[in-house]
Amino acid sequence: MHNTLEDLIRKLGRLPGLGPRSARRAVLFLLKNRDRLMLPLANDMNDVARNIRACVDCGNLDITDRCSICSDPRRDHSRICVVEDVGDLWAMERASVYRGLYHILGGTLSAIDGRGPDDLLIDRLLIRAGDDRVDEVILALSATVDGQTTAHYIGERLAATAVDVTRLARGMPVGGELDYLDDGTLAQALQARSKLEL
Amino acid sequence: MHNTLEDLIRKLGRLPGLGPRSARRAVLFLLKNRDRLMLPLANDMNDVARNIRACVDCGNLDITDRCSICSDPRRDHSRICVVEDVGDLWAMERASVYRGLYHILGGTLSAIDGRGPDDLLIDRLLIRAGDDRVDEVILALSATVDGQTTAHYIGERLAATAVDVTRLARGMPVGGELDYLDDGTLAQALQARSKLEL
Repeated sequence: MHNTLEDLIRKLGRLPGLGPRSARRAVLFLLKNRDRLMLPLANDMNDVARNIRACVDCGNLDITDRCSICSDPRRDHSRICVVEDVGDLWAMERASVYRGLYHILGGTLSAIDGRGPDDLLIDRLLIRAGDDRVDEVILALSATVDGQTTAHYIGERLAATAVDVTRLARGMPVGGELDYLDDGTLAQALQARSKLEL
Repeated sequence: MHNTLEDLIRKLGRLPGLGPRSARRAVLFLLKNRDRLMLPLANDMNDVARNIRACVDCGNLDITDRCSICSDPRRDHSRICVVEDVGDLWAMERASVYRGLYHILGGTLSAIDGRGPDDLLIDRLLIRAGDDRVDEVILALSATVDGQTTAHYIGERLAATAVDVTRLARGMPVGGELDYLDDGTLAQALQARSKLEL
């Protein structure tokens, strides 16, 4: 196999979700679709690598210094939803259930990975939360130990400000079956039970 | 999400083995490794798309009109191993068990997909097999109905020539357990049993 091909396969194989085997399959597929897919993909990749940057306010990825969400006057600028990374922002946007702003932390606090408060964009969140227009900071962090430690830490830091600090509800996922629910979720769902509305 | 990003995710998601979800993860991973991975990958992809071509003799992919295998004098030019596609050639080369030449058919005959003999590089194989230096054509095709139909068809076409036509052995895979073997393989392994050598 020629070196350029091997290089391409090795690089593709480093992507999460692809191994050497699927990288080879992907390259053969690309070679069968050079003009329709391979060249445009290389082009887009180059474009994104050179032009996409983090929003100076919220950390979202866009081609402008201030992202399209932060600079959209139709969004609700009184709410900031704090997420771990851009993938979480995308998930929220896909669900189309939230019209406020975001703040991307860049991860969670983690004793194991050695990530402390200075490694996350927490100071910038405190500055944003100090803005008079902001009423609420919603902590949409993972329901893991690290995620909840981070939420707790941010909650304490924000306690001195005037904003409401909230977190996402815990309970059964929609479509979830009781039988398959883990004990932790079941306990939280029971504890947070609400009156049946008729 | 910005359009360029969406385009990139959509294009990546068309690769076999990646869906929309893993394409998003891959793009975030790429964005975290722009200089080390994303730009070089875009570059390699562009390079391969523009420079890699099919060998005029065997159909292997390389940057020269005649591939490095066909033009290697140390390879055994008396044997041609017929495979379905370049991925199969790569698999044979990885195993390092074969030092002859290859011939890439470009698929198998298939009634369902409407692929007839003219859609495969069979005529070119017949011309190559007519060369005096060639003694043996090894049919390394899938052990599927289409693969075996193709092998049979090529065998008949080659019957008039002087070359030996062989096919890969059937039997238990190395490391395979009898209990997990399918009936077809078991039947063939029994039928093709050989004397135990002591």
